[in-house]
Order: sequence, then C-alpha cells, then structure tokens
Amino acid sequence: MKIYLNKDEMPTHYYNITADLMNKPLPPLHPQTRQPIGPDDLKVLFPMELIKQEVSAEPYIEIPEPVREAYAIYRPSPLIRAERLEKALGTKAKIFYKYEGGSPSGSHKTNTALAQAYYNKQEGIKKIVTETGAGQWGTALSFACAQFGIECEVFMVRGSYDQKPYRKLIMETFGANVHASPSELTEVGKSQLAKDPANIGSLGIAISEAVEVAAQDEKAHYALGSVLNHVLLHQTVIGLEAQKQFEKVDAYPDIVIAPLGGGSNFAGIAFPFVGEMLRGGRKVRAIAVEPASCPKLTRGKFGYDFGDSAGYTPLLPMYSLGHEFMPPGLHAGGLRYHGASALCSQLLKDGLIEAVALQQLECFSAGLLFSKTEGILPAPEANHAIAQVIREAKAADAAGEERTILFNLCGHGHFDLAAYDDFLQGKLEDHVLDEEQLKISAAGVLDQF
Amino acid sequence: MKIYLNKDEMPTHYYNITADLMNKPLPPLHPQTRQPIGPDDLKVLFPMELIKQEVSAEPYIEIPEPVREAYAIYRPSPLIRAERLEKALGTKAKIFYKYEGGSPSGSHKTNTALAQAYYNKQEGIKKIVTETGAGQWGTALSFACAQFGIECEVFMVRGSYDQKPYRKLIMETFGANVHASPSELTEVGKSQLAKDPANIGSLGIAISEAVEVAAQDEKAHYALGSVLNHVLLHQTVIGLEAQKQFEKVDAYPDIVIAPLGGGSNFAGIAFPFVGEMLRGGRKVRAIAVEPASCPKLTRGKFGYDFGDSAGYTPLLPMYSLGHEFMPPGLHAGGLRYHGASALCSQLLKDGLIEAVALQQLECFSAGLLFSKTEGILPAPEANHAIAQVIREAKAADAAGEERTILFNLCGHGHFDLAAYDDFLQGKLEDHVLDEEQLKISAAGVLDQF
Repeated sequence: MKIYLNKDEMPTHYYNITADLMNKPLPPLHPQTRQPIGPDDLKVLFPMELIKQEVSAEPYIEIPEPVREAYAIYRPSPLIRAERLEKALGTKAKIFYKYEGGSPSGSHKTNTALAQAYYNKQEGIKKIVTETGAGQWGTALSFACAQFGIECEVFMVRGSYDQKPYRKLIMETFGANVHASPSELTEVGKSQLAKDPANIGSLGIAISEAVEVAAQDEKAHYALGSVLNHVLLHQTVIGLEAQKQFEKVDAYPDIVIAPLGGGSNFAGIAFPFVGEMLRGGRKVRAIAVEPASCPKLTRGKFGYDFGDSAGYTPLLPMYSLGHEFMPPGLHAGGLRYHGASALCSQLLKDGLIEAVALQQLECFSAGLLFSKTEGILPAPEANHAIAQVIREAKAADAAGEERTILFNLCGHGHFDLAAYDDFLQGKLEDHVLDEEQLKISAAGVLDQF
Repeated sequence: MKIYLNKDEMPTHYYNITADLMNKPLPPLHPQTRQPIGPDDLKVLFPMELIKQEVSAEPYIEIPEPVREAYAIYRPSPLIRAERLEKALGTKAKIFYKYEGGSPSGSHKTNTALAQAYYNKQEGIKKIVTETGAGQWGTALSFACAQFGIECEVFMVRGSYDQKPYRKLIMETFGANVHASPSELTEVGKSQLAKDPANIGSLGIAISEAVEVAAQDEKAHYALGSVLNHVLLHQTVIGLEAQKQFEKVDAYPDIVIAPLGGGSNFAGIAFPFVGEMLRGGRKVRAIAVEPASCPKLTRGKFGYDFGDSAGYTPLLPMYSLGHEFMPPGLHAGGLRYHGASALCSQLLKDGLIEAVALQQLECFSAGLLFSKTEGILPAPEANHAIAQVIREAKAADAAGEERTILFNLCGHGHFDLAAYDDFLQGKLEDHVLDEEQLKISAAGVLDQF
C-alpha cells in the first residue's frame, strides 16, 4: 500500500524543534577563543538566511516557493506499508516507510541541498564548495546547484574517488567539478601530499580544502550536508509529509526509527512526531540507530567537540567519540561520523529519544530480506533502521501488541553493491570496540561548560 | 506535476493489439521444418498459459490477482509532466513521461518478469533459466522469481559479467544464480570455450546455454524478456495506466514515443493508444526510436529471421538486419538486438506506427539535459526517446501547434554511468553504417512466405 500526497498537500513550512524544547542546545563555540560564535563568524561561509535558521526559535519556517517547486520534482515522497516484509516476518506489527531514494541524488540529502543552493543563490553567490565522503551529499548538492544555476565544486575523499567512480560520475553528469582530496588545488592539500603523495584522504582534509577554497572567493560559499541545525530543519519535510499521509489512512506510528550518522536523517523523520508529543500530543518512541562500530550515542561522551577531524570547525555540544575517532571496517559511509548533531544529542540527553547500536551483519541480512520482499535495495545506512524495525516488530508480537512502526528508507543502495557483495561472500565482520580505546579517543571531547 | 493512480485504479487486464489488427502477424516457423510451430513445440520451454497468450486474439486478458498484488510493489508508475525540461527547451509542447525506473529492477522489464514467474509457478515449475546481456532482464527475472518462490538461473554474457559487476551483484542480492557465459556448465558453453578460452560471449551463446539447461530439466523452463507476443502483452500495463492518468488531467497525447530494442518497451506504452485509434478513437502518432547503429526498422529487411544469432530459435516474421548483425560501439545494451518483434514489425509495415533512427551523441546530450532538469538520470536506451521528444517539441513549435507528447522513461541509468563517462570525456562517437555491409548482413533474412 502506497500513500501519496498531492503537490498542494506538501508542507509549506519546515518544523523547528528548538521552539518546543525546554532545554535548548548549548551554543557552538569559536575554535580559538572558545566563546559562543556569532553570525559574523559564519557569514564568510554561509548565507545569512541559513545563519538565522541556525539560531532560530520560531516553530515554523516557511519553505520558499522556488524550493517547493524544486521539491515537486521528487516530493512528496511516498509513504509505503511494507506488507510483504510484514508477511515474511509473520508479524502483526504494521510497518510503514518513507522512501527518500526516489530523489535525484538517491537519498534524503537533496532536501537540504535544494534549500541551501536557493538561499546562496538569493545572496548572489556564484559557487558552492563542499566535501563528500561516500558521495551522497556531493551528488545532492551537484543536482541542487544545477537547479539554481550555481557552480558546484566537490572535494571527494580520494579513497572514495578511486573506489566509487560511479558516485563521481553522477556528480559530473549534474555538472559538478569533482576533485580527489587531498588535491594540489589548496594549501592544505599540497601540504598533505608533500607529507604523503599516496594519501587517500579523509573527510577532515576534504572539509579543510572546501573551506579554504570557499573562504578565498567572496562569491563562493561552503555547505554542509548534516549536523547543523539548519540542515536538520530542512529534512523535517520528511516527517511532516508522513504525518499528513498517516492522517489519510487514519493511523499513527507508535515507534519512529531512522539511522543516525550526523543526525539529519533521523531528525527529518522523527522531529515532527517528537514535537507533536512535546506539545502534549500522541506519544511516540523515536529510536536512532547507530552502527556498533561508531557508537557515539550509546558509548560516546556528551561535551564540546570539533565537527571535523582536523579541529578547524567551531566546537559543538554533542555526543562524540572524539573528533579523531576512526570506525573500523564499516560499510555504511554515512554513519562513520564521530559525533551527533547538537539537537539530537540534547534530545537524547533529556530522554526524549532513544538510541541503539547494531552490528553490521544483522543490518545487511535485514537489508537483503527487505530487498527481496519490498523490491528496493536499501543503502547500507538504511539497513540499520530496518534491522531495528525487525527487532521492534518481534518485540511487539512478543508483548501481544499490534504496534505501528515507521522508518526512513533514506536512500537506495545502487552505488553500494560492492558492500553487499562483500557481505554475500562472507567478507564482512562485526566489530567489538575496546572500552580503553574508546576512552582514549573520547579524551578529545571537552566538558568545560 | 505527477499524476498518480490508486491501487484500485490499476488495470485489471492486459491489452492484446492482435485483436484489433486487420493484418495479423505471420506465424513463427519451426527452425528445421520451416512449418508454423504449434503449442507442443514450445511447451518444453514455456508454460501453457503463456503459449496461449502468444497466439490469442482476445482483446483483453485478465492480469492474475497475485501478479496485480506483486505489481502493487511499484505500480501504478507515475505519469510525470516534464515541466522543467519544457522550460529549458522553451517549448509550448506539453511533455509527459511514464517513469518505469522505480521498479525493483530499475526498468520496465519487471512487468513481464512477474507475469512469467507467476504462470511458471502455477504450472509447478521450480526453476527459470534465462540469459541476460546488459543485465536489466536478468535483474527483473531474479526479483520476480524471489516473489513467487522459484529458483532463477541466469547466463550473463561474459563481457557484461566482467564489465558490469554491479548488475551481477544486484541479481545475487535477489537470490539468483548467475554464470558468466560461455560457461563450463553446458555442452554449448564447453564447445565455445574449447575453441576460444577467452571467448567474451554473446547473447546468442547465452540463449543457447539457457535453453540447453531448461530443456534438460523437466521442472525448469526458459524465459525471454522481449520480442514475443506475450512479453509485449504484459508491458501494456504501462500504456493502460497512462490512459487513465491522462483522463485525470483531461489531456491526451498527440505523439507517443519509446525506444525500440526488441519491441516490448515501445509496445507497452504505445499499443493501448494505437489500439484506441484502430477502434476509431483519437489519432496518435506512435514513434519507435532505434539507434542509427542498429537500424532494423528504418534500414532492415522485412522477412523471416531467427531470434538468436546462433539460429536455434523459431523463425519470426520481422524487420531484421540479419541474425548475425553486430552493431558497432553502441552504449545502449537494450537496443543492440538485430530484429523487431513480429507485432511491431507488422504495424510498421502497415503504416500504423513510425520509426526513426538517431545517433548516440544526440541521445546522450538529450539524456544529460533531462537529468539536470528533471532529476532522473535515464538509461541510455531511454535517451533515444528523449532525443526524439526534443525534436518533436521543436517541430511542434515550428508548426505553431501546442502538441502533447508522451514518452516512456523505461529505466534509470545508475548502472550505466561508465557510458556517460565515456560521453563526457568525448570517447563516444556516432556511426554511419555502410549500405553494402547492411545488405550482406540482411541476406540471412528469408522472404519465402
């Protein structure tokens, strides 16, 4: 069963959960002064409208008309009842999912990319520079820039650039200029290559390269695909649509589940439901699923940490494993991030959401079952949500309750087949992290507040 | 603008254009006796229901309930107005497309795969064996077999097997058993490898291997993904849905366009509209687009030819370039077939449809424009339709008429990015076929009827 919305039923406003929080997140701190940063510190990188959104306490922020028009290319996304998965599980639980893989980039990232490209265009910006690891964010921003007639320059971690040529190619089909990072185009890149000509790069280096290029050109800005408040805000179109779709079938989720990398995927589907609960509405359990090999929510430390591994960005208040943490052999690129967004971290700290860490073999098995029954091969990130959905369905059956479960199928896995191949060939393994190593890594998280 | 149908508005019957034709296609002939073949000749390979459909003159054939249930996983597919493409072209033409890339295999092939798997299952068949070249058909059948609990064995042309590992992998995620062809598993394969251990295979060899395996096992059948009447029949769900969707917006196409490889893609979207015209309804121009490097419709010979390059299959009445024709450097695997289905051939011969041959550089340019404006990267096959759509939109503007154009976006190009890369790097070229060579190749087409 698929539940569609018409274009005229699309949300006209984003939902800002900050407005409904008793405890607002702590402010970001300047990396040198360690004082709260202000709009002026950010305007070299971001347009003023996004900076305003970053600190807004308004509950609803209008989606500009041209962004809504661009959303209409692929939104509203369908809400789908996973009847064949339910049957295969023999569960009485009702399982629904929002499918975001139909977007031009194949993931939910397009939702914020279009908004960011639009606000930059409005401010007269000619080029947006960004980094990409697995490639979903770079793809989304490439498409968004093409929509609003802005140049797009992407620094792609060299390891991914070499291993995932399809991801690079799809960015190029959208007209982006893609460089392997570290590159010879920046001081940061050159110094890295001088040290090690075979450097395969990291997200930290790629961020630094993108920021360097953006900061030098007054007609260029930088863009980030997760973690920041404005990014989470834009993703709430997912949950807001889902609410209207549930109304049409007179249903409501007891549980909302999404994977958590930086937090925008989870926030996008869960925050509108959590907000409803905060305002006295129906109760919902919102569960963020992280990989057991990158367990910032369940085993990380709450404190101030850098957003990047090199320590150039502002300090953010978050659950973190330390900004130098590197997860072992994890085949879900979008979930390798060391920290969780300030908003998700605050909600978890206050007991308003739950978190669970899962091993990847269970997740890939769940993803294959989903693919065979529902006909969509999920991105490895989404497999984490599916595995938890299966656990919750079984728990509901065991409790003798018919629970309704919603999850975010954040993207398709068409560019992740190498990971599935490794899984099918028995080359993937689960990882147990050592408590001592986690402590050493988390020592970089500051608690001076 | 997207036009959806509800599940209860899905077509309940396939449309069989044979019923409305003055001139029915000539019968297929036995490859040895050259006499019309009967059901008994086919039952070792196909279930009786499909053999009946192959020769049926009934206008409507019911879609079995379990097939409709399986269609509901991804159907009805949306009818989309390509407003951003229209704007980029500055045309007054109204351009609509059916998007079939949302199916589990990423193409329209799933429509017939599900029906074929179902009828085989009903007859107690345990395994379906098939061949695949580019991989779309093998992917579709793998998924369909998983839905109905049948084993699936796929012989994949070794050239594709080696160059397109993702296509092989996605079949494996659906549970199929995929072999590179030629293989050591069949007599045909062994004899080919004995002659040349480095043989990269061909569709002809792969068909022979699949048929050999299917014929030896009485619980196994063979399946074909295009060309045959029953395959075209199953694809008519595309056009039938489109008709209902146009009703909702009070519009109707003046022109229907699709690429033509074997013919099922074109037939699927065009036949319901052509049938409407044949029954005295509204006029429509139905245009089949073929690549200039494989121009069976525009430069081939109408006569009896084999379906495979090795000459094992029945002789079919069709436009053909000769069954040994090999198109030069064409990056649209689905359009490399030497002949057109009997039904499409008869309609073209009788002037009921049109055909046009396009060069691939124009097609890839059109596909990239579509991707940047509409947000879906098309399969290279679909680019042929898009290029013709652009030509027709310009022609309509030149004639001062506001024409409505419908085309079939038969699949996404997520597994064809290497071809886009070659195009972007200037490595693709157009091909002009030599008239003499075409004559030599077409000498294999028999006209003894």
